[in-house]
Amino acid sequence: IWSKTFAKIGEDWAFLALLGIIMALLSFTMDLGIYMCFTARMWMYNEFTIHPAVQYMAWITLPVTLVLFAAGFVFIVSPQAVGSGIPEMKTIMRGVVLKEYLTFPTLIAKTVGLTAALGSGMPLGKEGPLVHIGSIVGTLLSQLLTSFKGIYENESRKTDMLAAACAVGVSCSLGAPIGGVLFSIEVTSVYFAIRNYWRGFFSAVFSALMFRLLAYWSNSEETLTTVFPTSFQVDFPYDPHELFIFALVGVFGGLSGAVFVLFHRRYVLFMRNNTRISSFLKYNRFIYPSIVSVLIASLFYPSGFGRYLATTLSTKQQVGALFANFTWLSDDLSVEQAERLSHWDVANTNLFVGLGIFMSANFFLSILASTLPVPTGSLIPIFKVGAAFGRMIGEAMYLWFPEGIQTGGVLHPILPGGYAIVGAAAFSAGVTHTVSISVVVAEMTGQIQHIIPVLVAVIVSNAISTLLQPSLYESIIMIKK
Amino acid sequence: IWSKTFAKIGEDWAFLALLGIIMALLSFTMDLGIYMCFTARMWMYNEFTIHPAVQYMAWITLPVTLVLFAAGFVFIVSPQAVGSGIPEMKTIMRGVVLKEYLTFPTLIAKTVGLTAALGSGMPLGKEGPLVHIGSIVGTLLSQLLTSFKGIYENESRKTDMLAAACAVGVSCSLGAPIGGVLFSIEVTSVYFAIRNYWRGFFSAVFSALMFRLLAYWSNSEETLTTVFPTSFQVDFPYDPHELFIFALVGVFGGLSGAVFVLFHRRYVLFMRNNTRISSFLKYNRFIYPSIVSVLIASLFYPSGFGRYLATTLSTKQQVGALFANFTWLSDDLSVEQAERLSHWDVANTNLFVGLGIFMSANFFLSILASTLPVPTGSLIPIFKVGAAFGRMIGEAMYLWFPEGIQTGGVLHPILPGGYAIVGAAAFSAGVTHTVSISVVVAEMTGQIQHIIPVLVAVIVSNAISTLLQPSLYESIIMIKK
Repeated sequence: IWSKTFAKIGEDWAFLALLGIIMALLSFTMDLGIYMCFTARMWMYNEFTIHPAVQYMAWITLPVTLVLFAAGFVFIVSPQAVGSGIPEMKTIMRGVVLKEYLTFPTLIAKTVGLTAALGSGMPLGKEGPLVHIGSIVGTLLSQLLTSFKGIYENESRKTDMLAAACAVGVSCSLGAPIGGVLFSIEVTSVYFAIRNYWRGFFSAVFSALMFRLLAYWSNSEETLTTVFPTSFQVDFPYDPHELFIFALVGVFGGLSGAVFVLFHRRYVLFMRNNTRISSFLKYNRFIYPSIVSVLIASLFYPSGFGRYLATTLSTKQQVGALFANFTWLSDDLSVEQAERLSHWDVANTNLFVGLGIFMSANFFLSILASTLPVPTGSLIPIFKVGAAFGRMIGEAMYLWFPEGIQTGGVLHPILPGGYAIVGAAAFSAGVTHTVSISVVVAEMTGQIQHIIPVLVAVIVSNAISTLLQPSLYESIIMIKK
Repeated sequence: IWSKTFAKIGEDWAFLALLGIIMALLSFTMDLGIYMCFTARMWMYNEFTIHPAVQYMAWITLPVTLVLFAAGFVFIVSPQAVGSGIPEMKTIMRGVVLKEYLTFPTLIAKTVGLTAALGSGMPLGKEGPLVHIGSIVGTLLSQLLTSFKGIYENESRKTDMLAAACAVGVSCSLGAPIGGVLFSIEVTSVYFAIRNYWRGFFSAVFSALMFRLLAYWSNSEETLTTVFPTSFQVDFPYDPHELFIFALVGVFGGLSGAVFVLFHRRYVLFMRNNTRISSFLKYNRFIYPSIVSVLIASLFYPSGFGRYLATTLSTKQQVGALFANFTWLSDDLSVEQAERLSHWDVANTNLFVGLGIFMSANFFLSILASTLPVPTGSLIPIFKVGAAFGRMIGEAMYLWFPEGIQTGGVLHPILPGGYAIVGAAAFSAGVTHTVSISVVVAEMTGQIQHIIPVLVAVIVSNAISTLLQPSLYESIIMIKK
């Protein structure tokens, strides 16, 4: 019995390590693909400058092509690959069997489709699809191993394995091994067995290590560090009085999170219940993605409306700028800081108007984009909206207290970047109903000093959004029923 | 129905907030008491210097008195207050009813006894007793509310409440709201309901806020920040090759964690099964605590053996020095750095011998101290032992690679403080079998850059210690059966 148990444990470990490594390889390859698409888009925009019309065409051609390719590829190879994946995994973890959901064709469709969809620059994220991809990889891997050995043959072990696979999926997509595991537990499970706790971490750590090694081998310094590194140098980066403002940011996060979920559900149901539209779109599968992608790409056109949306920056750069540790309204910006801000057009218009447009546009367009028949996730766009809101509040606080807030002889200057972090966490919490987003934020930024403000806002946001609406994932399950 | 549900939710929130605030008040008061005892001990030592014998008497008088007072007080008021509390809560959470375990006299006995025991300078921690205290406060509070309103009347809600109370207890004692909640879930639960997840966080955040406000009102700048703040300034503070060493630290952590648990159980069982000793001690209750406290206090005597144990520093200062971001073996230490090291006597003896003595002495003495008939926790002493080991490895790495390790053109200097953090996490993980200790460490140090090395070591340590021994808490349950 001992040797048998030991062998099983050994296999288990090897399996989880392998799962982590494969997921890191997949995620890294997808990131490379997405980055290449981004570079190609920027190249086309900067190259074809002979006439505004030509430049506009060059700007929208690639996104529309990529979205249509993704939609077509997914439709032909495996229509199950459309959408997020978290609601479906939640259903599967509750014991429902979804046919054809965890197969090899779906894996291919989801991976290729997601790369194309994110490469097109649509306001989409990858956390949901990576949960799906992780679960497929886990299932296939266990089938492969079962055929000649036989772990994970019974149902309960299968659920254990799927929980770990979901965890490694989120960890991969967010670059947050701990927060990712906790986030995946919160969004997919109802009851959780503590004895499975280590599985997700084990796999996620292997994944994170592999990711760093890949980055090191490919000499891309960028991925060596945290995803959105911040650099606040103070030990206690806020004043106790500011906590009220952070709580208010949480109130906003909860309210707008509920509104986001509500608008998303209403829009999807409207499109479906309107029989004329839905029957028309059913027979013309490419009309809807074409319209949506042309609309979004046009709004993102950098010389037009896109000037407010910082569309010449990648998502990573956008969030980096929103989290940046300098005050945008400050009078003496360094050259490098001014360069970063030049993408936001806040010099010409009012900063608050600019950020307000950025926020609302991303809010509505990410709802629209998430209805595209391609693999979609919503967390990163939501994160951006929240960060922009937080940055607005932070800059407003700076205008109100340019010298900082003084308590007990200590002067605490306002750090607008801290507000951006709190805002991002609060809005994400409002949409997903998770507390662990606060750990994710700490891991993403590589700094944990803001943990108390983040937690305050996240809990307030959770409280309000839970009262008003189900989480986005629950809402999607309701829609699909 | 709506208004009833809403009222219930509202009560629930008020209850959790109140629980958090009361726990912060209790914990803060206890910290003050412990600090006063420490100051008194140092004052007596520095004042009575006329003769070594007098000085020695002055040094041991207070610890022995405090230990005997704690033992007597606990024995008279409520013998249930002896020991940790985590194993008992684990048993209660599994559905076993322990009589008289959650009563007001036990609360008083535990609070006063713990303050005296920790004030005596014995190598003890407070995480376990605070879990117990949290559970008592929660139970009493719910009884108080039930008498005129009636939440938490059914069993399942009681368990929900106890889970939150355990969480706030750990969070209070470690100054780590997120890690504390996760740690408490790992050590007390078998299955966990995700719908209860937010309760612990909510209460823990209120507790953390209250703690900071208390610190602010009492003008003690120290508690405003993180518990053991570190200040590593680099983004990527280790070289990929160092991960092998970190994994080896994890191996050591797992092995020594298992040895710690084994020695602890063997020692307790030996004392109990030896009928002559146990019957003698039964009728002379104060003999055993006297012997143990005189022995430990004598070994801690700063002019004697205590010179290796840095006993003139508080626990906080000891861990701070072990985590410090400078290399102890460096040739050019600043005056302030040299002053910090002067407490360790590493200038006269070999650094590795000194740290080795510190480590082994704390290892065995904390086993001995945890058998005292007073409220005891073991996490912080364990943490110190691990940190000392990590610091040794880190300094050895510095000797081996004084210039740092070069990979791909980037030179990564060795940060021995990082090794200390990894060592502390690995050994704690080996004893408690938890993964969440890595989050606790990140929150305690206020920095999260070392999260990957910490996770690697923690998981390796968990794997090894789980194969060899039950966790310390499971082991205590086994002993008590």
